[in-house]
Amino acid sequence: MRYFVTGGAGFIGSNLVDRLLQGGHEVVAYDTLSTGQPEFLRLAHRSAHFRLVHGDILELATLTQAMKQCEFVFHLAANADVRFGTQHPSKDLEQNTLGTFNVLEAMRANALQGIAFASTGSVYGEPEIFPTPEDAPFPRQTSLYGASKLAAEGLIEAYCEGFGFRSYIFRFVSILGERYTHGHVFDFYKQLLEHPDRLYVLGNGKQRKSYLYIQDCIDAMLLAIEKVQGEVHIFNLGTAEYCEVDDSIGWICDYLRVSPQRIYRGGERGWVGDSPFIFLDCSRIQGLGWRPRLSIREGVIRTVQYLAQNPWVLERRQ
Amino acid sequence: MRYFVTGGAGFIGSNLVDRLLQGGHEVVAYDTLSTGQPEFLRLAHRSAHFRLVHGDILELATLTQAMKQCEFVFHLAANADVRFGTQHPSKDLEQNTLGTFNVLEAMRANALQGIAFASTGSVYGEPEIFPTPEDAPFPRQTSLYGASKLAAEGLIEAYCEGFGFRSYIFRFVSILGERYTHGHVFDFYKQLLEHPDRLYVLGNGKQRKSYLYIQDCIDAMLLAIEKVQGEVHIFNLGTAEYCEVDDSIGWICDYLRVSPQRIYRGGERGWVGDSPFIFLDCSRIQGLGWRPRLSIREGVIRTVQYLAQNPWVLERRQ
Repeated sequence: MRYFVTGGAGFIGSNLVDRLLQGGHEVVAYDTLSTGQPEFLRLAHRSAHFRLVHGDILELATLTQAMKQCEFVFHLAANADVRFGTQHPSKDLEQNTLGTFNVLEAMRANALQGIAFASTGSVYGEPEIFPTPEDAPFPRQTSLYGASKLAAEGLIEAYCEGFGFRSYIFRFVSILGERYTHGHVFDFYKQLLEHPDRLYVLGNGKQRKSYLYIQDCIDAMLLAIEKVQGEVHIFNLGTAEYCEVDDSIGWICDYLRVSPQRIYRGGERGWVGDSPFIFLDCSRIQGLGWRPRLSIREGVIRTVQYLAQNPWVLERRQ
Repeated sequence: MRYFVTGGAGFIGSNLVDRLLQGGHEVVAYDTLSTGQPEFLRLAHRSAHFRLVHGDILELATLTQAMKQCEFVFHLAANADVRFGTQHPSKDLEQNTLGTFNVLEAMRANALQGIAFASTGSVYGEPEIFPTPEDAPFPRQTSLYGASKLAAEGLIEAYCEGFGFRSYIFRFVSILGERYTHGHVFDFYKQLLEHPDRLYVLGNGKQRKSYLYIQDCIDAMLLAIEKVQGEVHIFNLGTAEYCEVDDSIGWICDYLRVSPQRIYRGGERGWVGDSPFIFLDCSRIQGLGWRPRLSIREGVIRTVQYLAQNPWVLERRQ
């Protein structure tokens, strides 16, 4: 099978690329390398079955050309900076919604019909049901990021109905693990390296969040694609647990053997649109036999270990 | 109050403009006049409180300039050709999603925060609950039109959260009445004028649809805006009944005193993405005291009467 992976040099993308190559597949990765890292593809480049195309999903002609001869698309390229939506409202719309539209149009031009899409639990806004199932009540969007991903989901579904595409939409919690390059563990670790005695925390520390280890995430995606057929499949991907931001800080501090003063900022929510509780019902994907191997705590520790072993990551991403 | 009405020369927009002017308000209508009709604004132009700006919501600078000094936006401009999404997939995205984004950005530039948006029952896709409430299970999109409107809803909600906007999102069934210029009554009437003896019908005639008379629709919107305050309000707007396409054909034929042979085409659905059953739960708007004055049958007849009295409409719109 020849896979096309947008965002193939990113955190999730590059890990997926490695797994697909290990599985004996051919892979074309497509990435701007604006947040993706060439270093993440070092292993992949050793394979004769791998090719990186340096391009933007907003450039439809380049994208369409790059996708030629591919058989299935993993669409992971996105603006993943959830927090800064209100600082540049067009960014989420362009990179997540219009970008997805271009991916669908490039697929249509190449007569390609299978797509897996990295969506987010943020599309549930601030739900009232926990754990939140895929068919939760019609959500109200609370962030430009969530809105842009919801819009992308809708486009993909409409292409399934209109053009016979088949799709796998995965609504992720936050993903942790090797090659993790942004988010709270990254921020906390970076702060603590510079100032082990104090830690600035967005929000009140009581936000309840859910996390999933990258390899567990990839297992789930590959399993779903292997096991289920049909037009539109939507899966929540997360662990069957959640933690408070304060828990996560505790694990990180214990591991690093530091005891910083915690300085909370921003009130109940860390930023505008931050959901104070994310916990997804993952029984649908579990019904296929999938179970995450790492707990949230283990995922957090694994991430800190990775950052400790790869200090260049901290420099590269600001 | 000074209102800004996008799509102000269209079917719903121009009727709303007249009502707002009757209510003593000032109105700026913004329209490309590509499907809107100058004729529909003949009455409005007699008012000193009315101004038409000829412009496209895709032109952000023109839009922002036109919106100056206005206090509240009715965003009605849209691609409303539900059926032809797959023939030009970018059209819904541009006119409905990007257009809405521009309206929101123009509002932000003008420090304007109140918006009413014409959404659609199509955002429910093919729901499993009838009548379908606003908090129906997370929908799956079945048309590019529905997807583009859902995306616009999400953007509006995110602007409420991120920028303190307040919004009224109205999910319409099909609207009927004076200045109606497209849809099944228009198509049937036009066909029967030319060939009273045969009628081509998209679908099997058994599709169950819901309709609402234009003045009832406007009553509902004005009432909601008057009565409820807060960040995001979502209202289904429809009658508490539905009819089959065959019922509607019967009413039209009885009124016109014709008995055409009915030729059904396209199977269960009239077109790709056509929902075979639309019936919205409108108890939320009814809770404010609103009741439609016309039944579906009366709305259909009123529409045929309007078309009979305004034959130019049939020529103008193809």
